[in-house]
Amino acid sequence: MAGEKKLVEEITPRDTDFARWYTDIVKKAELIEYSGVKGCMVIRPYGYAMWENIQRLLDGRFRDTGHENVYMPMFIPESLLNKEKEHVEGFAPEVAWVTRGGQEELTERLCVRPTSETLFCEHYANIIKSYRDLPKLYNQWCSVVRWEKTTRPFLRSREFLWQEGHTVHATAKEAVAETERMLDVYADFCAEDLNMPVIKGKKTESDKFAGAVATYCIEALMHDGKALQAGTTHYFGDGFAKAFDIKFTDKDNAIKYAHQTSWGVTTRLIGAIIMSHGDDSGLVVPPKIAPVQVVVIPVAQHKEGVLDKSREVEGRLKASGFRVKLDDSDNSAGWKFAEYEMKGVPLRLEIGPKDIEKNQCVVVRRDTGEKSPVSLDALDGSVTGLLDDLAKNIYEKSLENIKARTYTCGSVDEMNAALSKNGDGFIRAMWCGDAECEDEVKEKTGAGSRCIPFEQESVSDKCVCCGKKAETLIYWGKAY
Amino acid sequence: MAGEKKLVEEITPRDTDFARWYTDIVKKAELIEYSGVKGCMVIRPYGYAMWENIQRLLDGRFRDTGHENVYMPMFIPESLLNKEKEHVEGFAPEVAWVTRGGQEELTERLCVRPTSETLFCEHYANIIKSYRDLPKLYNQWCSVVRWEKTTRPFLRSREFLWQEGHTVHATAKEAVAETERMLDVYADFCAEDLNMPVIKGKKTESDKFAGAVATYCIEALMHDGKALQAGTTHYFGDGFAKAFDIKFTDKDNAIKYAHQTSWGVTTRLIGAIIMSHGDDSGLVVPPKIAPVQVVVIPVAQHKEGVLDKSREVEGRLKASGFRVKLDDSDNSAGWKFAEYEMKGVPLRLEIGPKDIEKNQCVVVRRDTGEKSPVSLDALDGSVTGLLDDLAKNIYEKSLENIKARTYTCGSVDEMNAALSKNGDGFIRAMWCGDAECEDEVKEKTGAGSRCIPFEQESVSDKCVCCGKKAETLIYWGKAY
Repeated sequence: MAGEKKLVEEITPRDTDFARWYTDIVKKAELIEYSGVKGCMVIRPYGYAMWENIQRLLDGRFRDTGHENVYMPMFIPESLLNKEKEHVEGFAPEVAWVTRGGQEELTERLCVRPTSETLFCEHYANIIKSYRDLPKLYNQWCSVVRWEKTTRPFLRSREFLWQEGHTVHATAKEAVAETERMLDVYADFCAEDLNMPVIKGKKTESDKFAGAVATYCIEALMHDGKALQAGTTHYFGDGFAKAFDIKFTDKDNAIKYAHQTSWGVTTRLIGAIIMSHGDDSGLVVPPKIAPVQVVVIPVAQHKEGVLDKSREVEGRLKASGFRVKLDDSDNSAGWKFAEYEMKGVPLRLEIGPKDIEKNQCVVVRRDTGEKSPVSLDALDGSVTGLLDDLAKNIYEKSLENIKARTYTCGSVDEMNAALSKNGDGFIRAMWCGDAECEDEVKEKTGAGSRCIPFEQESVSDKCVCCGKKAETLIYWGKAY
Repeated sequence: MAGEKKLVEEITPRDTDFARWYTDIVKKAELIEYSGVKGCMVIRPYGYAMWENIQRLLDGRFRDTGHENVYMPMFIPESLLNKEKEHVEGFAPEVAWVTRGGQEELTERLCVRPTSETLFCEHYANIIKSYRDLPKLYNQWCSVVRWEKTTRPFLRSREFLWQEGHTVHATAKEAVAETERMLDVYADFCAEDLNMPVIKGKKTESDKFAGAVATYCIEALMHDGKALQAGTTHYFGDGFAKAFDIKFTDKDNAIKYAHQTSWGVTTRLIGAIIMSHGDDSGLVVPPKIAPVQVVVIPVAQHKEGVLDKSREVEGRLKASGFRVKLDDSDNSAGWKFAEYEMKGVPLRLEIGPKDIEKNQCVVVRRDTGEKSPVSLDALDGSVTGLLDDLAKNIYEKSLENIKARTYTCGSVDEMNAALSKNGDGFIRAMWCGDAECEDEVKEKTGAGSRCIPFEQESVSDKCVCCGKKAETLIYWGKAY
């Protein structure tokens, strides 16, 4: 399909207005289009292909860890949602309600799932009888709805796509291990496939998922220094099992309540990628999830042999398993360069008459702009190498960003001083464990608790807020 | 995960009560579980894996024909649904309405998409400007909701999973060609991947999709002689384009309305597979979509070497790309045989001490029950051959069923006589083209018009109902 010849309009510079830069990119890289319903977006082919790649890679990791996919209904009867007290209190205020079906008012209203714990629990109560039925390791890919007041594409939308894992175990120990294992799966996925380093940790009591005993999370840091929660895993203990009567006969013939977990990541990851790796020319898409890994651009394509050679190269790379696009439209080479920079295609491969003479092409990296002539005889290896180098480089740059923007502070004044001097970022500071201090820090600095990192270290023996004995190191930060 | 030892309960014989046989299978083969909301089902891992295989294979066919995936919002504002008159009249009576979001009554109610023509049209009006933007060949995988009064698992549910293709073209000719091309894609998919022959044809005026100029369909015939519409494609002309203002500047600089199509298949295909291929022992799953293609069952597994050899065979087949499961649970071999027959696994591979001595295993076909000893040295080729043979055989049996149950009739009396003598089936009979005759035939015989087949033949020059000049051959039949 030929694209209409259009100018690649400029985007707002990243350091001028980060929020506008972000929304410019989601529109101009053709990731989304707004719809008539606030907070619901059209995910366009280029954006959806990124999500499909995320799905494929994560789904592989879930299968390798023994999980199976299922599909639950999208509607939850109000009485079912109400079964677990903390859960309903957390979610009821932000759900969409179906009150009419066909020609009739419903006798009981149905909410559009904001998350599916209650549906999974109802199902598990039906199918789990014995220790032999455990563990149950289920996952679901679907869309969910949360009626958010403020919305932003990918980051906070009323409808979003996600996966939700829901597992049932015979013991608390196994369930906790699952919660930690899946957090590792998420962290590895972010590092290896999204080239985005994350901090692993535990949420504070006040930040837990509604109904959970403990919530674990991975926190990433965006280019502007704001944190982004990229994924969470929850340990439920036997609270849901008691509310939903999920019991099994154990090996010792005793009837016991089961222990559960849930865990999820969402299309928000696409927002995280944009804000981690993008620059003033647009997106930079990690090679593993790039819809197009290599764009082939013929130079002086009207000249004899140029298009033929370009097609040959495209075919060879495709046959080797790369995701390749040849742009042989009549747009200028300059227009094409800007267009695929905007879309963040990792490598641009230029082929002109002089290259053909030398049996080479010129490969340009999206992250550094570096150009290198590459022999067509060694193309596969060079492309693999350059994609790997790019992936490593954007990972390192993100890691540098975290290092440069992580401040260790001993008091609230020091926190404010660090933030005003260096801009937003992670603040490492000690905490006494008291929710009042947590609130006070947030009020005075704007930085909330992000997580209690697994990698603990004592940077002081006093709470950053009240000065009493510190219990734990916390990462604080402003967040998306 | 070890399954609890359970008895494989008997299912209702297929010829005793086809409807009960069907619901017994969907439950006992663990395809679905009912949920608390009428007409919404839990699709369990085994059933969902069939759908994932269908998705993967169809998605490949859609990509090969140049289509791209997108994701549209699940909510349609009432005013948007109302934009195309015939469309809203067809769908409004059976939609679910969201009237409340979070803590507020909505100022405009939103329907949960029953189909997404209106959403695609709104988007297309935004992004299509020039002939260079055409064609747009989009597809979406999602769930949709239609508030049906009578529901049956897979066949008619209030929520179901499907794909919906939506395309835009510069000319009517191209759009019609797309409608026909995608019907061919569906028919080939049914034949090759589901081993289910179908009749291709056009719906009558009264049976068209709401808002379409023409609807094409593929019709399958179930074992009980009832027809099942397995997929549809719709040509819209420029009706939606006019209602939604989808215009483009053509090569001649004139501004024109675009021409559109849509097409879809649903989880109903799983119902079609059950009723086409299943038997009194349970499911028979076509090899291409089988979650498990080969189940390996150790015989006398406590004897030395049996489990080791079974695992070796499992590993070899997996490495060759087959979907394989080893059942080394402590259930009896007899129980396992019945369990995997119920689940319709195409091949069962038995390995016992005597087989190991002879360097062989015994392979049992699900469709015929035929047992053959197979040398372990030639295992891959034998498994491939047997899966192919099974696929051909169940296709041929379905085709035989169509042939045996297709009656050509010259009058309504003959139709009734054929149906009461031979049972339900397709009736081929001529029609004058008048909707009143169509209704009258249905009223007098119970057999509605299924389609005007592409393969026309004149079996009489008179309408089966009024006796006036016949216009066309029609397939009639009772349908799911």
